[in-house]
Amino acid sequence: MLIDRLITKIQETRAPIVVGLDPRLDQIPADTFFEFNKGIIDEIYDIVPAVKPQIAMYERHGISGLECYFRTIEYAQSKGLIVIADIKRGDIASTAEAYSEAHLGSSAHATADFVTINPYMGYDSVEPYFSDCKKHDKGLFILVKTSNKGSRDIQDLPMQNGQPLYMHVGELVSKWGEPLMGEMGYSALGAVVGATHPQEALTLRKSMPHTFFLVPGYGAQGGSGSDLAGLWAGDRYGAIVNSSRGITSAYQTKKFAASEKDYAKAAREAVLDMKKDLEAYM
Amino acid sequence: MLIDRLITKIQETRAPIVVGLDPRLDQIPADTFFEFNKGIIDEIYDIVPAVKPQIAMYERHGISGLECYFRTIEYAQSKGLIVIADIKRGDIASTAEAYSEAHLGSSAHATADFVTINPYMGYDSVEPYFSDCKKHDKGLFILVKTSNKGSRDIQDLPMQNGQPLYMHVGELVSKWGEPLMGEMGYSALGAVVGATHPQEALTLRKSMPHTFFLVPGYGAQGGSGSDLAGLWAGDRYGAIVNSSRGITSAYQTKKFAASEKDYAKAAREAVLDMKKDLEAYM
Repeated sequence: MLIDRLITKIQETRAPIVVGLDPRLDQIPADTFFEFNKGIIDEIYDIVPAVKPQIAMYERHGISGLECYFRTIEYAQSKGLIVIADIKRGDIASTAEAYSEAHLGSSAHATADFVTINPYMGYDSVEPYFSDCKKHDKGLFILVKTSNKGSRDIQDLPMQNGQPLYMHVGELVSKWGEPLMGEMGYSALGAVVGATHPQEALTLRKSMPHTFFLVPGYGAQGGSGSDLAGLWAGDRYGAIVNSSRGITSAYQTKKFAASEKDYAKAAREAVLDMKKDLEAYM
Repeated sequence: MLIDRLITKIQETRAPIVVGLDPRLDQIPADTFFEFNKGIIDEIYDIVPAVKPQIAMYERHGISGLECYFRTIEYAQSKGLIVIADIKRGDIASTAEAYSEAHLGSSAHATADFVTINPYMGYDSVEPYFSDCKKHDKGLFILVKTSNKGSRDIQDLPMQNGQPLYMHVGELVSKWGEPLMGEMGYSALGAVVGATHPQEALTLRKSMPHTFFLVPGYGAQGGSGSDLAGLWAGDRYGAIVNSSRGITSAYQTKKFAASEKDYAKAAREAVLDMKKDLEAYM
């Protein structure tokens, strides 16, 4: 099952790392856009289990951007990478079915292995993806506690029992994921839990032992290896940490400074460095 | 300002109605898909102020579906219709900027007048759209209480003060919308409030006097004119009611039965009937 394959790949690479492919390139031809991603993939496919394209960065370029999105997924999968598409969709059942077909079930173009989903509309906006998850061996990550500051506006609101909303959403996600359990103890229905909230992440980790976490917010957004120390469940891992700009724009940083043409080599160095940072706290 | 133009068009047509363009046509060429929408638009542009394409129904057809989505927006606007794109996006600031460019600010393809947005990630996932709203005279509808059954799972959860979550989200949306006030008393930051929850809608209407409502759930989903009686704010209206299948598939119903080639004429009849149903309770 996909979730077991993800965990196995993390064990093999010893890198619970997903590289975000969110090129912030303005006004460039779609070919260049794809070549940029291909360069990164070629340098990192042997040391990480997964990549995460953020679809907004492709949608902003219209049709040619979407073409690049599908090509990127197809190429990453051809190199053995698991693709987590960050689409954060969420809508009523008939519409959710259409999104599921578009992003998990289509045979007309490449589709991701996992997609991210927003929980605000409730179970009947999530369940329609299950059929494609089972049929095509795919998975979901539901937003629980996101990495941005604004996540406190709604996700942190205290409920009647005194707990913040995200704890309740975490419980729902845990329950909703029961029919999608893999063999290694985790459901194919995972949760998005930001690296920028270490205490909250730890509490969620304890209350959701069978939910695999996708963890954004490492690096550019401020999270570090020590913030994630509580997340790890021994050699079963239990989480995969995303870094986007920290990897793909590493050549522009002091630490991994390189010429533009060596951007992909700098990305590989940044991944190896991130792996070391995470390992120190495992 | 756009929100004033929407209200003025509702006053002129006396129809607080938006026609959902969500063709549920499987495996059809993009041209046929567009022609279907064009047929509907040609029959209804003179009697309603707005149309609402649901982007998932286009995304499911990949690149050719998205081409049809942009063509539909362009054609609807060329007939004087206001376009509310139902995209329900929601993401961190840099990503929200990309979505805003893709769906409100792009000069590379047609963009909608309003888009729908999910509030779960908080203010910093909403504010990045404001710049395009001001610069290009656009608007937003934020999900508050949606029309589906599952909306109770999270939106109805009781907060510490005893109120359901959606009331709190409504207050936030009302406050967030202050910088986008139009001249007719409503903000360009509106709210999505389902027709299937009449009591809740009434309570929200009272607590959000300056927030314009986009109301899904009429017709196929179960809402009727009498359910909406509490929504109307005299000749300023204050809400626009969506119907999708009830209009575009009217030819398949007993009431408006027609041959397939007359689907658009049946759609017009269904709009006129809906207008009468709403007017009876205004």
